[in-house]
Amino acid sequence: MEREHFSKLYDAELNEIRQKLLEMGGKVEVMISDSMKSLVERNSELAEATIAFDHQINHLEVEIDEKCLQVLATRQPAARDLRFITLALKIVTDLERIGDQCTAIAKRAKELNEQPPLKPYIDLPRMAEAAARMVKEALDAFVRADDALALKVCEDDQFVDDLNEQIQRELLTFMMGDPSTITRAIKVNYISKCLERISDHATNVAEMVIFMVKGKDIRHTMSS
Amino acid sequence: MEREHFSKLYDAELNEIRQKLLEMGGKVEVMISDSMKSLVERNSELAEATIAFDHQINHLEVEIDEKCLQVLATRQPAARDLRFITLALKIVTDLERIGDQCTAIAKRAKELNEQPPLKPYIDLPRMAEAAARMVKEALDAFVRADDALALKVCEDDQFVDDLNEQIQRELLTFMMGDPSTITRAIKVNYISKCLERISDHATNVAEMVIFMVKGKDIRHTMSS
Repeated sequence: MEREHFSKLYDAELNEIRQKLLEMGGKVEVMISDSMKSLVERNSELAEATIAFDHQINHLEVEIDEKCLQVLATRQPAARDLRFITLALKIVTDLERIGDQCTAIAKRAKELNEQPPLKPYIDLPRMAEAAARMVKEALDAFVRADDALALKVCEDDQFVDDLNEQIQRELLTFMMGDPSTITRAIKVNYISKCLERISDHATNVAEMVIFMVKGKDIRHTMSS
Repeated sequence: MEREHFSKLYDAELNEIRQKLLEMGGKVEVMISDSMKSLVERNSELAEATIAFDHQINHLEVEIDEKCLQVLATRQPAARDLRFITLALKIVTDLERIGDQCTAIAKRAKELNEQPPLKPYIDLPRMAEAAARMVKEALDAFVRADDALALKVCEDDQFVDDLNEQIQRELLTFMMGDPSTITRAIKVNYISKCLERISDHATNVAEMVIFMVKGKDIRHTMSS
């Protein structure tokens, strides 16, 4: 009976980590979307709000880290749970850094909003959407231990990389044609790179999920 | 007596993690230095070798991760040791990504070596040196739990950021003066950003070390 009580508490704790991670992921998705909106709609107030929002992400990072440490110290998790918790510790770091990238995008958006628009943004919002979806799916893959979904995230990274290269080529044409656009083009290029880095973080998470799932499978095979 | 034996084995395991991390850090330092050398000395063979070397870093990441998981599962570390191991898990990820940045630098170096030199590289090697030192000191700070050294690493980040901005401004002048330099200037700029990211990784490690040490201090204060 006591054992059952322990087990329920333990499950609740693992579930809390899971929920907090998804909450953090959701907030990061909003940051990606809002930082892009602040650029496309030339809304510097939204850019400011996005920059200010980042402290919530940092706060969640500390909170999840502490929860993971607490469970490790008090529950002595083994095998699958141990892998889950140590991976959660790594994933919060990626999520926190995605928040940093969104802050960087919002800062550049503010600067760009003070100058005449360079060109309508078409590919950047597509990149941002893809990156946000990758973050969501990487986290979903983690909480469900779904390596097929994680593999999809890794494959989607190519789409974002291709868009980034396309944007870079296009900006190059702008800069070569009219050197007065160079300063702005470099800022837009920077934003494109930030989005690429966000999708890299999502891919890193997805790769770790695959390793978590496959690692388990390999052990299972070896011990059976 | 048995307890003593256990304790010695445990210490040896923690020490192994420490040593492997320092080994990984040392190899990453070599990668930073070699990738820069391959650019400055226009040595594409060295660039190739640096790219190939990255698999050693990836291998060490997996090895250290597994060792940490094993210690967590079998030793049930508490307090200080628990923080040490979970931080080691996070640090290997940073080191592995520094390896990725070096690979990216080496790839760009190869491309740049095929074209006429843009200008002598003076600030980039200084950035690379600073970044490599930051990586070394961040790891030293970790293994010694030295928050003063970790703070120094965080402060040094500004030096690398300043150099990066200076390089970007200089490249801008190049591009504006002669659009035929734009393609090369963008590659050099990319390398500068890679070095900035490397120093960001070192700073992230240093920040985590400060949190590890201060976190402990705070608890100590609270429980005494």
